[in-house]
Amino acid sequence: MSDVPAFPYPDFGVAPLVPSPRVTNLSHLHVHTPDLDASVGFFTEIIGMVEADRDDRSVYLRAWGEWMHHSLVLTQAPEPGLECMAFRVQDPAHVAAFAERLRAAGTEVHEVPAGTEVAQGDAIRFVSPGGHQWEIFYDFERIESPAHASRLMNRPLPFPSKGAGARRIDHLNVLDPNPGLTRRWMEQVLGFHVNESVVRPDGWEILNTMAVTSQSHDVNVMEGPPSLHHIAYHVDSVHDLHRAAEIYAENRVPVDAGPGRHGGTQGWFLYAKEPGGNRLELYTGAFEVFDPDWKPIVIPVDAIDYMNVWVGQPMSMEFLTTGTASRPAPELKGATA
Amino acid sequence: MSDVPAFPYPDFGVAPLVPSPRVTNLSHLHVHTPDLDASVGFFTEIIGMVEADRDDRSVYLRAWGEWMHHSLVLTQAPEPGLECMAFRVQDPAHVAAFAERLRAAGTEVHEVPAGTEVAQGDAIRFVSPGGHQWEIFYDFERIESPAHASRLMNRPLPFPSKGAGARRIDHLNVLDPNPGLTRRWMEQVLGFHVNESVVRPDGWEILNTMAVTSQSHDVNVMEGPPSLHHIAYHVDSVHDLHRAAEIYAENRVPVDAGPGRHGGTQGWFLYAKEPGGNRLELYTGAFEVFDPDWKPIVIPVDAIDYMNVWVGQPMSMEFLTTGTASRPAPELKGATA
Amino acid sequence: MSDVPAFPYPDFGVAPLVPSPRVTNLSHLHVHTPDLDASVGFFTEIIGMVEADRDDRSVYLRAWGEWMHHSLVLTQAPEPGLECMAFRVQDPAHVAAFAERLRAAGTEVHEVPAGTEVAQGDAIRFVSPGGHQWEIFYDFERIESPAHASRLMNRPLPFPSKGAGARRIDHLNVLDPNPGLTRRWMEQVLGFHVNESVVRPDGWEILNTMAVTSQSHDVNVMEGPPSLHHIAYHVDSVHDLHRAAEIYAENRVPVDAGPGRHGGTQGWFLYAKEPGGNRLELYTGAFEVFDPDWKPIVIPVDAIDYMNVWVGQPMSMEFLTTGTASRPAPELKGATA
Amino acid sequence: MSDVPAFPYPDFGVAPLVPSPRVTNLSHLHVHTPDLDASVGFFTEIIGMVEADRDDRSVYLRAWGEWMHHSLVLTQAPEPGLECMAFRVQDPAHVAAFAERLRAAGTEVHEVPAGTEVAQGDAIRFVSPGGHQWEIFYDFERIESPAHASRLMNRPLPFPSKGAGARRIDHLNVLDPNPGLTRRWMEQVLGFHVNESVVRPDGWEILNTMAVTSQSHDVNVMEGPPSLHHIAYHVDSVHDLHRAAEIYAENRVPVDAGPGRHGGTQGWFLYAKEPGGNRLELYTGAFEVFDPDWKPIVIPVDAIDYMNVWVGQPMSMEFLTTGTASRPAPELKGATA
Repeated sequence: MSDVPAFPYPDFGVAPLVPSPRVTNLSHLHVHTPDLDASVGFFTEIIGMVEADRDDRSVYLRAWGEWMHHSLVLTQAPEPGLECMAFRVQDPAHVAAFAERLRAAGTEVHEVPAGTEVAQGDAIRFVSPGGHQWEIFYDFERIESPAHASRLMNRPLPFPSKGAGARRIDHLNVLDPNPGLTRRWMEQVLGFHVNESVVRPDGWEILNTMAVTSQSHDVNVMEGPPSLHHIAYHVDSVHDLHRAAEIYAENRVPVDAGPGRHGGTQGWFLYAKEPGGNRLELYTGAFEVFDPDWKPIVIPVDAIDYMNVWVGQPMSMEFLTTGTASRPAPELKGATA
Repeated sequence: MSDVPAFPYPDFGVAPLVPSPRVTNLSHLHVHTPDLDASVGFFTEIIGMVEADRDDRSVYLRAWGEWMHHSLVLTQAPEPGLECMAFRVQDPAHVAAFAERLRAAGTEVHEVPAGTEVAQGDAIRFVSPGGHQWEIFYDFERIESPAHASRLMNRPLPFPSKGAGARRIDHLNVLDPNPGLTRRWMEQVLGFHVNESVVRPDGWEILNTMAVTSQSHDVNVMEGPPSLHHIAYHVDSVHDLHRAAEIYAENRVPVDAGPGRHGGTQGWFLYAKEPGGNRLELYTGAFEVFDPDWKPIVIPVDAIDYMNVWVGQPMSMEFLTTGTASRPAPELKGATA
Repeated sequence: MSDVPAFPYPDFGVAPLVPSPRVTNLSHLHVHTPDLDASVGFFTEIIGMVEADRDDRSVYLRAWGEWMHHSLVLTQAPEPGLECMAFRVQDPAHVAAFAERLRAAGTEVHEVPAGTEVAQGDAIRFVSPGGHQWEIFYDFERIESPAHASRLMNRPLPFPSKGAGARRIDHLNVLDPNPGLTRRWMEQVLGFHVNESVVRPDGWEILNTMAVTSQSHDVNVMEGPPSLHHIAYHVDSVHDLHRAAEIYAENRVPVDAGPGRHGGTQGWFLYAKEPGGNRLELYTGAFEVFDPDWKPIVIPVDAIDYMNVWVGQPMSMEFLTTGTASRPAPELKGATA
Repeated sequence: MSDVPAFPYPDFGVAPLVPSPRVTNLSHLHVHTPDLDASVGFFTEIIGMVEADRDDRSVYLRAWGEWMHHSLVLTQAPEPGLECMAFRVQDPAHVAAFAERLRAAGTEVHEVPAGTEVAQGDAIRFVSPGGHQWEIFYDFERIESPAHASRLMNRPLPFPSKGAGARRIDHLNVLDPNPGLTRRWMEQVLGFHVNESVVRPDGWEILNTMAVTSQSHDVNVMEGPPSLHHIAYHVDSVHDLHRAAEIYAENRVPVDAGPGRHGGTQGWFLYAKEPGGNRLELYTGAFEVFDPDWKPIVIPVDAIDYMNVWVGQPMSMEFLTTGTASRPAPELKGATA
């Protein structure tokens, strides 16, 4: 290289690194609500998100730290619940690669061509062993220089002076009849890793925190009937949770847990129900996993109380075991084992 | 899969995902200090880190959120400065893969067998185009059930009731005569991506924030004579910065910038000099990049003031342009272009 | 005045304002503990207070923002509980003035000459209608230039880098069989005002927050058997409560409520039991009353739930109704009605 | 008292405590602005205050924690500056008592009958030795059950989900040619006490923090040409300062100091200019003085740097020495010595 000039910048002449197929991150959640107007009002006025788009049955929302078109789709429907969790992959070619892996694992895959869903390119849909619908794709619309953008050029929307100020989507938590089975499917087929696992003495797993990013989890899978326990948005500090709790109290938003800190994940939490009945967590301060050889934390059942609530008051069993329904599209047969 | 029982957990029968060579994260920094005792006292009493190990010339330190043996090596030496920045890779086989890539790019590579350095397996050392010494390895000692561990089983050390409470290593910032050249080397050879770039009208880059993780940056490369501008540890919130600033004030630790918020990266900062003369940043609240197709933010030179300090008072040129020396081992010839 | 030079500073020649008798503030609390060593360890290591003095049965403690000799006396005794709450008056002559007022109101008064109690001048002791022992005095030892003081000359102790960092004594809360009666006695005899009152439809008062300062309350009087519900120290922000909660969790300190925010007083709270069994609240963010004509907030019983906990989870009745015993000196006959 | 029934509540039969004349607290500030609309927009949209009233030249504003009609009057005028600082007294009779004291001290007093100013009863106006106009009164309109009130019955306005969220007026800071003279006048005539004093070796005082409440100061008097340095509103925590700083940055509000912490008073600060040119401080975390015998902190001139800024970057002399004009009504002749 010594005979190459330093500027204009040279090429070092090595073959590019070609990434192996990889799910990269949670892109957005598609959630049903029986009262679309009230739900949209909650997420914009109370939480401080922005309406990105709207069609005849759905509203698309984005938080102040998000560059992509939306992270939440709210759809008018008779009952609340999760329609779909949507993840991105690293490379356009990975969509087909994962379709092949899913089919090899016995999971039925449905193709969703570009143009079918707002802002989204070619995708596949499929159902987890636990009965939750997933979507995987690469192309997604990125916001370019919006008129209302911040002077800060790395900030897609201005810091909101109004509302709780959720910054970005963080994770979701689903109830699933067999969290151990879904874990193997997510690990082996989709490349997730497990960070924490609550395990009975006989080896049956009742909770698995699963991640593809450095986050403590992108998906939490807890034992229960197939349903959505909560969606979660990230805020910057515990203080934001307390400001949110004040805004909730003034607006009579029903809080069902928090503020407090989980032992598992170490995340500070505040849980409330949006007007449609789905549960929203605001979340901050969890550990992050950058090490390539993280050893899953195995939590025995008898430590579950303080691992569940490290700071704050105990949660009710009702809180821990109930969510809103999971509503995959009817035409798909889920992965089964 | 439908005839496989769900428990004990089945195998889904797909080929495992084999990761492409990947640098995963900043493991630790090796820093020189002319007053080892004072520097160790600062990092333990004021910052709240723990002494993990000690040999005749060095002390090894770990923060409360870290599972690996150490993230900071302090070595007695005539002058302060950076000896080495050490990164991990995803898989043992990647050490050799990167050695090959580096050599193909004209970078001399020195092998450091397991046992040479405390807690660390087979490694390679090499020097960047900008004159900074790097180290890459996979094996590193992980702390198992230390006697002083937290009851919280995902926490390798108890939350410290003393000191600023740095949670984990975050990044480093180096001065480099040619940040654009070093960027290409890091991108093409090591697989880093650039998140933000300050660019002159002629295309010359004066600052590049480089990452392999989801962090806003793992290494910041700023134009200047080869030296260490600062090392950075992560804290959980702005409030921790203010508590740290109080502790600094009481202990007459020289603060040279902050508390404030950078525009670039959006990180809240507090900079101070440890007794050996190296600069330490405490850091929180930066954006994270989970999207697989982040487009680097190009910052024109005329926006540099508010991109440098978004909240807080302007920094001095002296602060921006001086660091402590970079001190690679003399036997290595750096990568050149 | 026009013929008086402006410097050296002149006297304006008006008669001085002579204050009417006034109780000024809560000086300190005298609390019993069955395990003095453990209690002292808790207040110094976990809470971050400093041992100011010690004699054969008691330890005297001071918080980092306090100029006076101590704000807490811990005394070895068979059972936990409150021995005495001690208030200061504005002027030396007010001690006798209040003695006279108390005797006129039928309250027996016991004189405690200077030298009897550590750091304290001539005082009087007496018992409230609810059975709690009070003390009133003017002279109290002030700390002068302690060797361990902060460089900040308005700060009697350095900002602590260790522990929860309680800044100063805030208030106490007592259970009393007749909070309405005790209120009248405190208002009419001692000059307190009531800020908030929880009132049954028949006019019986079950809670009165009483103050002589601008604080939301210096003494909270709640219906119950004569006992100490909690003592409270002030911290600067909600974040300090959360840091304290983390330190409590690591050290297995039993937390019985919080973190949360009261509706009444608007104070953020965290309650825990010190090893001797007495309850300690850390407290911040309550309203302050500077207006001379504050109208007491009358809270109907049916609003008590959200006025008790505005942010956080509901408190148990056990928490609300139990404290540690109140232990006035046996020789005093309490004020009765 | 033993034969008096405990309920209905008895009278203890002691003569009531009659307060000596006492200024109780800063009620409101009357400030000029050359751009009334822009100033009102700033205080409502950016700071989160509420418009309480409006007449043909002025707008009256109230913060979310304030029960009284307003704490800020903004008046359209050619130049920015302070028209008047208005304090309340403890008792209606004290207005005349202070008029008498002021006249005895050579200060001209102007009577302002009830009805002259919005929401305010009988008052007196007068000018300090330093050239600032004061007002003293007892009666002021209190807000009763406003339609937009919080469910929290001790909260006159809902916690604002929008803006910086200033809670209540805190203090003001004036430049004055002779802070030592004004101090004696405030002490001897009006009953203020001094908490901190910056003193030259010859005894000349260049700064006095003066209080009638337990606050670190209600009025700060600094040496300089008669003018308003800043008005200050209270927020609950350092975090609120940082959220405000973010909102300021997004809205291009010119910040001239902070966030940081003063050594003197220990208050955390953020200073900015409202669109009319007057300086606003947001403020929290100062010490409070409840002791009846506080000894003023005497700060030598050579400690002024760190007593001015304990946390944060040094302030410019321009910041420290310039304000907006002080504009007493022309008909009043100031107190002189």
